[in-house]
Amino acid sequence: MPLVPHHDSSPLHVSTQHPSLGDDVRVRLRVPDGYGPVTHVMVRSNPDHEPRWSEAARIGHADGWEWWEATITIANPRHGYRWHLVLADGTQAALGQGGLTTLEPLDGFDFALVAGNEPPAWMNDAVLYQIFPDRFARSAAADDRPVPDWAIPVTWDTPVDPEAPGRSGQLYGGDLDGIALHLDHIDGLGVSVVYHTPIFPAESNHRYDASSFDLIDPLLGGDAAYLRLIEALHARGIRIMGDLTSNHSGSAHEWFRAAYGNPGAAEGDFYYFTDAAHTEYESWLGVPSLPKFDWRSQELRRRFIEGPDSVVAKWLAEPYGIDGWRIDVANMTARLGGEDLNAEVRQILRRTMVETNPDTLLLAESTNDAASDLQGDAWHGAMTYPAFTRGLWAWLGDPDAANEWFFGIPTGRPRYTAREFADQLDRFTGQIPWRVRLGSMLPLDTHDTARFATIAGDGTIPLAVGLSMALPGIPVVFAGDEFGLTGVDGEMSRTPIPWHRVDEPSVAGRIDLYRQLIGLRRGSAALREGGFRWLHVDDDTIVFVRESAAESVLVVASRGDVDLALDAPLLDATDAEALFGDATLAVAGDGSADIAADGPVFAMWRLAGVTAPSVPAPAAASVDQDATVAEDDR
Amino acid sequence: MPLVPHHDSSPLHVSTQHPSLGDDVRVRLRVPDGYGPVTHVMVRSNPDHEPRWSEAARIGHADGWEWWEATITIANPRHGYRWHLVLADGTQAALGQGGLTTLEPLDGFDFALVAGNEPPAWMNDAVLYQIFPDRFARSAAADDRPVPDWAIPVTWDTPVDPEAPGRSGQLYGGDLDGIALHLDHIDGLGVSVVYHTPIFPAESNHRYDASSFDLIDPLLGGDAAYLRLIEALHARGIRIMGDLTSNHSGSAHEWFRAAYGNPGAAEGDFYYFTDAAHTEYESWLGVPSLPKFDWRSQELRRRFIEGPDSVVAKWLAEPYGIDGWRIDVANMTARLGGEDLNAEVRQILRRTMVETNPDTLLLAESTNDAASDLQGDAWHGAMTYPAFTRGLWAWLGDPDAANEWFFGIPTGRPRYTAREFADQLDRFTGQIPWRVRLGSMLPLDTHDTARFATIAGDGTIPLAVGLSMALPGIPVVFAGDEFGLTGVDGEMSRTPIPWHRVDEPSVAGRIDLYRQLIGLRRGSAALREGGFRWLHVDDDTIVFVRESAAESVLVVASRGDVDLALDAPLLDATDAEALFGDATLAVAGDGSADIAADGPVFAMWRLAGVTAPSVPAPAAASVDQDATVAEDDR
Repeated sequence: MPLVPHHDSSPLHVSTQHPSLGDDVRVRLRVPDGYGPVTHVMVRSNPDHEPRWSEAARIGHADGWEWWEATITIANPRHGYRWHLVLADGTQAALGQGGLTTLEPLDGFDFALVAGNEPPAWMNDAVLYQIFPDRFARSAAADDRPVPDWAIPVTWDTPVDPEAPGRSGQLYGGDLDGIALHLDHIDGLGVSVVYHTPIFPAESNHRYDASSFDLIDPLLGGDAAYLRLIEALHARGIRIMGDLTSNHSGSAHEWFRAAYGNPGAAEGDFYYFTDAAHTEYESWLGVPSLPKFDWRSQELRRRFIEGPDSVVAKWLAEPYGIDGWRIDVANMTARLGGEDLNAEVRQILRRTMVETNPDTLLLAESTNDAASDLQGDAWHGAMTYPAFTRGLWAWLGDPDAANEWFFGIPTGRPRYTAREFADQLDRFTGQIPWRVRLGSMLPLDTHDTARFATIAGDGTIPLAVGLSMALPGIPVVFAGDEFGLTGVDGEMSRTPIPWHRVDEPSVAGRIDLYRQLIGLRRGSAALREGGFRWLHVDDDTIVFVRESAAESVLVVASRGDVDLALDAPLLDATDAEALFGDATLAVAGDGSADIAADGPVFAMWRLAGVTAPSVPAPAAASVDQDATVAEDDR
Repeated sequence: MPLVPHHDSSPLHVSTQHPSLGDDVRVRLRVPDGYGPVTHVMVRSNPDHEPRWSEAARIGHADGWEWWEATITIANPRHGYRWHLVLADGTQAALGQGGLTTLEPLDGFDFALVAGNEPPAWMNDAVLYQIFPDRFARSAAADDRPVPDWAIPVTWDTPVDPEAPGRSGQLYGGDLDGIALHLDHIDGLGVSVVYHTPIFPAESNHRYDASSFDLIDPLLGGDAAYLRLIEALHARGIRIMGDLTSNHSGSAHEWFRAAYGNPGAAEGDFYYFTDAAHTEYESWLGVPSLPKFDWRSQELRRRFIEGPDSVVAKWLAEPYGIDGWRIDVANMTARLGGEDLNAEVRQILRRTMVETNPDTLLLAESTNDAASDLQGDAWHGAMTYPAFTRGLWAWLGDPDAANEWFFGIPTGRPRYTAREFADQLDRFTGQIPWRVRLGSMLPLDTHDTARFATIAGDGTIPLAVGLSMALPGIPVVFAGDEFGLTGVDGEMSRTPIPWHRVDEPSVAGRIDLYRQLIGLRRGSAALREGGFRWLHVDDDTIVFVRESAAESVLVVASRGDVDLALDAPLLDATDAEALFGDATLAVAGDGSADIAADGPVFAMWRLAGVTAPSVPAPAAASVDQDATVAEDDR
């Protein structure tokens, strides 16, 4: 990699992660020895969409880096900023989240600090465990529950049927007390948050077609079982997040039943009825069982998302006290044709959460590029696939594995090199503020996708799991992945957990892999919230470092054999501590670090933290956009 | 250039430029022979932020291109779409406005069609002539007008004083009847629209500090003179656009005077007063004479932008009937700290224009990246600099010319190669819908910038003027550029027009250059609304083609000598007609085209139009995001 100046919005380079509007924030750039002499550095902010420039001052040199610092004043809830450098030969360069460029960067790719809508302090330590309740575990009480009309009860060892009516109808009978039976397993993995898909009453096993938001499905044990589960998890220091469908309800929902065919109902404007009789309506992708909410309705807002009597508030408040929401189909919510109330709805929703309990997390399902929604005003992060998950599949997938299913993209799974994986990661995080990137999930798969293990190339599971723990973002384990489950699509991946196999060597080994990597993630300040910097990328191999003042973690992932030398002064590997993987790191006399391993390999080492000049520079003055403009001119 | 598939949203590739929500639109991709066999083509739309895929069908082959066509249904006011290709070897590629990529493109770089808010039909034929009224021309009546307190009257040959109080105070006394005296000159250039900077009463020569929006400054001749000018221009078929400050007024404005120190005034909420006594307030970049409007005020909206009694409507309606507005500081309008009502304000403003006269144009001043504002919902285009103007200065500027002033960017003017110019143009238009790109200005300079001639490299003026006429967008001539005026910054560029020099050979030659190039632009369907495709880019030279069914125009611009061969089947140059410039185009037996010239050079040839298969394909069915999802599942 060429030697290039570095900044990210992590604590090494930004004086606070929690700015408020009007705050002065110190931001730092480091320029490696060998990049070329830099004579002038400025920071361009863009308050109210008009550039404003701050002078940076050289504040010192440490470990091969020259540090510059400027002070910026937070002007907007998303405060974009970027670095402008002038070199001794007069050439210029700009550094934003899109990388170093001799051209002007686009505003959307600025670094960005977010003021307000703080995520909970526990976000950066979160490792999620995703549970699909019908398929996780069954308590004895499940045997005695009446079977609803829509359900086709099946035994735990029945194969998943991908065809209707089995598809949504097969009822395995997993329930909330079933989850509670396996807290030792969950706790043992080391995860910190359980996120479960919907548990409201519905007419399907996936329950994304809720018939009410006011009670927990009795089939799952009802409100009392949920309370027991929440308390049991909290007693172990594990948090719990629910799943809300803000785009639609089920057609069996009490609100829809009241509104359907009844234009005068109080709920008459909750949905997009398209005829006078209120019998035709908009629905999710045209599926009639999933009528779409019309968020112009003030009464819908009041009942669902706004204020202490809303659904959003109810489950966050006592006695339940869950710790956050994942919002289903957040990308389509409140959007239809010429109308887009998405920002308003998500902001109201989050405000209600803050009023109920600010120490809660709000994540948006947005399965594709969600940059325009993910600027920190409401969603703390996303359940999203293009930045990490799809690139990972394209890189680490077995080229010969079946290719039919690929996240709904009908042209199927492409084949990426490691370089393409890195490029796609950069591309899809380039417009996301650092704080929001840290709050976005890094799933290998979910209940809506095939299981990664289905297509994983030989020996790539440790790379995939390791990267999900080592990259900036929230690791998430879809329950069953630690058992090595496979599944060719989002339906077949909803396999019942094979608890009877937990002690089989292959399963125990996989569980141990997860346990190790989760432990390393949660035990490392650098992995939780350190900066991110590429050190090397080629067609087979990526090398990056997560950096903090306390420590750094060097990460190597490769499908092939590794034999490469990293130049000094990129990092100080003299006291490296091996954390994971079968690879060697040797430091030469000139400070360069040689990494060698047989591939595929995933390896991590703990290194010394980054030494930054500790003397703060005098606050640099901001200069106007055009210093030559006289006071009374425009 | 590598042979790559091509699409742009011009009429060659899109069945209508005027879609409405719900319309089916046919879109076409062409794949050059030699790119590699393509086996499957789809179009990805993103209705309501959820992907939807349309199959494309192969519809024929013509002149070295294979054509594919798909039907998409316009779902949102900005309908983004992109092409996905599968090649015979299984590799995939995607094509959006960011170019061809093996990775997934970002949604913001999709091609985009805009439904609603039609620009006027005359937009694509517009060549603007920008007039700064105090400096254009003086009628005899100007001699008799009383001089206001703020003004320092000067004679026409007085040098512009860049320092206060002369800076904003020098009054040259140009007036509206003065403009009317020079309609032969304006008409003779061939421009189609006069755009003038503000003419409301104010306390400065630039008048961006209006004291009223309800009358024309008597210093300029008042309402009657404006009416005379409008009628005289319209009689010649020339349109006229005004300039409104939606971000601020002057501190002498009648609304501000009423509100200042008077919290109970009807205008009390028109501005952001920050103290109870209403004596402290927000202003444009902190300049006290320019208090910032607070668009939360409903009464401000009613008086200024909303409805038939508003300022916006008044000057569009009879008896005045001007043809559009350029909105000053549109980028900052209705934005302050945590508040952003920009979209609401611009949409209301445009709605009022449509209600008054839909055949009007609305352009936003937005001097930097304005992609987020420029999706077609209100502004038809922008007065903007990064895409074209700054790249042009960086490429064509004399490296040794003074470098102090560069569009308010304090690190000064960078030096670009032709390739960097092209890259910056692509970068800053990549997120702009084609229709909005066609509506955005291509200024060499304006009243807010230095004059391009001040720093132009030897022989580069024809390149600069030629490119402003040949690239997609609205050419604009800042009055005086055709006289070869210079000026080292936005103040010094406001030089009085030296009418006495009009017959000097150098001036007459420059005027003739403009006349020729404007004539070519206005006479060419391809230059007005044809597609755009790069043919060759290197460090010195750019070659592109504007393409329509009727004709194509091949364009070469180079700072150096040119000697290059363009491969067939990129274009058919067999019957090329030279339009401009001293260069030769020779077609070889194999269909390749050789271009040769001594540089610097700007040259254009008219070529045959693009032959497209004329048989429409049967409408291809849309397929759901995930064809395997059963009806009742999500």
